[in-house]
Amino acid sequence: MKHGARNDIPATVTAIKRGGVMAQVEVELVGTTYRMASVMTLDSLEELGLKEGDTVHVLAKAVNVLLVKP
Amino acid sequence: MKHGARNDIPATVTAIKRGGVMAQVEVELVGTTYRMASVMTLDSLEELGLKEGDTVHVLAKAVNVLLVKP
Amino acid sequence: MKHGARNDIPATVTAIKRGGVMAQVEVELVGTTYRMASVMTLDSLEELGLKEGDTVHVLAKAVNVLLVKP
Amino acid sequence: MKHGARNDIPATVTAIKRGGVMAQVEVELVGTTYRMASVMTLDSLEELGLKEGDTVHVLAKAVNVLLVKP
Amino acid sequence: MKHGARNDIPATVTAIKRGGVMAQVEVELVGTTYRMASVMTLDSLEELGLKEGDTVHVLAKAVNVLLVKP
Amino acid sequence: MKHGARNDIPATVTAIKRGGVMAQVEVELVGTTYRMASVMTLDSLEELGLKEGDTVHVLAKAVNVLLVKP
Repeated sequence: MKHGARNDIPATVTAIKRGGVMAQVEVELVGTTYRMASVMTLDSLEELGLKEGDTVHVLAKAVNVLLVKP
Repeated sequence: MKHGARNDIPATVTAIKRGGVMAQVEVELVGTTYRMASVMTLDSLEELGLKEGDTVHVLAKAVNVLLVKP
Repeated sequence: MKHGARNDIPATVTAIKRGGVMAQVEVELVGTTYRMASVMTLDSLEELGLKEGDTVHVLAKAVNVLLVKP
Repeated sequence: MKHGARNDIPATVTAIKRGGVMAQVEVELVGTTYRMASVMTLDSLEELGLKEGDTVHVLAKAVNVLLVKP
Repeated sequence: MKHGARNDIPATVTAIKRGGVMAQVEVELVGTTYRMASVMTLDSLEELGLKEGDTVHVLAKAVNVLLVKP
Repeated sequence: MKHGARNDIPATVTAIKRGGVMAQVEVELVGTTYRMASVMTLDSLEELGLKEGDTVHVLAKAVNVLLVKP
């Protein structure tokens, strides 16, 4: 599959937290200690069948990426 | 400053492309070869005063991060 | 590939408009006259190699979908 | 009302799921079997007064629509 | 019309900037000196028929609003 | 800190609602009766250490701001 997102990085799932409707998935970018989080519906989580240790790709549309200067 | 985004990673600006209203800023995550892109208004680019080689922080709200399985 | 988006519909590319940094891709949902539009970077457009008549899948994270009542 | 979103499709509410803060509303595009989901706050759900069978319009800003190629 | 967004504030259009695909609309919140900006496609701008001095309502889904602490 | 968002307004936290994974923070723009809401992860809420009465800045990327005409 090819997609229209400019940001696509391999990562390992380190933790999953389930709420009533939403879930939060913590990942660590492969080969780094950088962490990112993704929030999705529980339904999406089930469809993806995600569990700790899984390898995923992290995608974000460039328009939703914010840059800040220290 | 503290912010409510779960994703915050240091990066170096590698390229800037200007359009009529929007600009695209390419960054490389510090210590990696991972690349991300941010699209912002030209006005925001000017306010930030970004140029190649600058260090920035990359932020994305967790709800806007999508995970895909290979 | 599997992804964490709850919205995924087949569509045909009906028009592409290029700007300086961004591109707008118009699609029609397969089997309907419903139209949607996606805005992406020109770089993403090139990587996808999109052209009129192509079949694509339309994805949106559920958190970015707004419902309005007539 | 007129709005600045390029994506606006009639749909029927097929299911509503309530969490502690958020709610997930499943819809089916009118005249099709295509399904989409919207996540909003419980407060928004109450203000809209949504219930199963309601007709709504589905809106997404074009910048938040991702196209993928099979 | 009723919508599922928690953020809806009246504003006056103070400036419009057109690019090749996108447009940037600057607004001032009514009764204040607070300014906000919206980026949309040129097509959306035409459909809305926006011009300087118009009154609009500013909407953002709560999930896309970021809070920062000074 | 400087950021690439065109929308940045001071506000006071008026209410916080916690769910299983997400939290909703209501704010009132300083000097007005305009209200906005932000949805973030509980983790982000804890990191920000937000409580009622706090002053924050409200940020939204211009691409995620929708304008509607009455």
